[in-house]
Amino acid sequence: MAEMCFTSIGTVRSPHTSREGAPIQPTGAQGVRGHIDINPEFQAGVKDLDGFSHIFVLYHCHLSQGYDLEVVPFMDTEVHGVFATRAPRRPNPIGLSVVRLLAVYSGRLDLADVDLLDGTPVLDIKPFVPDFDVPAGEVRTGWLAQNAEKAETLTADDRFTSRDYGE
Amino acid sequence: MAEMCFTSIGTVRSPHTSREGAPIQPTGAQGVRGHIDINPEFQAGVKDLDGFSHIFVLYHCHLSQGYDLEVVPFMDTEVHGVFATRAPRRPNPIGLSVVRLLAVYSGRLDLADVDLLDGTPVLDIKPFVPDFDVPAGEVRTGWLAQNAEKAETLTADDRFTSRDYGE
Repeated sequence: MAEMCFTSIGTVRSPHTSREGAPIQPTGAQGVRGHIDINPEFQAGVKDLDGFSHIFVLYHCHLSQGYDLEVVPFMDTEVHGVFATRAPRRPNPIGLSVVRLLAVYSGRLDLADVDLLDGTPVLDIKPFVPDFDVPAGEVRTGWLAQNAEKAETLTADDRFTSRDYGE
Repeated sequence: MAEMCFTSIGTVRSPHTSREGAPIQPTGAQGVRGHIDINPEFQAGVKDLDGFSHIFVLYHCHLSQGYDLEVVPFMDTEVHGVFATRAPRRPNPIGLSVVRLLAVYSGRLDLADVDLLDGTPVLDIKPFVPDFDVPAGEVRTGWLAQNAEKAETLTADDRFTSRDYGE
């Protein structure tokens, strides 16, 4: 399989300038403001985005180097497969966050609940649509079932600073 | 900005072998079975994924070539910015679907509600976690507000066959 190569469509600006102390999910970043500067050549693509209250931001975890297939994420003390976590050091370091969209300007999206690091390259923006993105039936969350609410208060510590942070 | 290059971690197997007639969202693919074959070198990463009922699949929209910044998606007759749609012909053709996880085997994930095309290269798998991925407050869905439920019945037609399909 050949490599699949992508380019940045914009850049995140946020108050989180380092891994340490950054929230590990948007639920831990309630009210934190930030924005995305959209590169000039892609700005026409945001037309009508202002009708949506929330967007998916797909981004390059640009500080991640390498990966482990099994990790001890921040939110637990047990080893889990990396695909059962949201840790950024993954085979393809693509991050995914649902953030609140406050305003759309030419070339700039104002955001709230931003857990993204300043300088993060943005790969894609998609509208969040509950009919597509929220399962209708029961949702089970495995090892996170007892831990997910910790994301509201946990921040990244230094355990992965030299490599990257888990979740 | 340099290109960011990724590799396939696995391949989708599904009954949807062509764009035409394929569902345009998982909501239109209720009960449709499929699976992901995980490449041998990444199989250790699925440990503990079986505790989750739903996963995000990030994939390469491999049949997409090029993009338009403004599109008329399947679900409307108006032009919208591509980032306000889920159309696959986007600057970085990365697709995102929430699917139901039925079973986890060594090297294989059995799925339901599969809207993915057979042969799709998988970029990443993440657990779906409502605490992270479902906004707590009001959700507005812009132009899709009157249209999202159409995804349950609409399928891709031939309007973009020579290029790709919209949404």
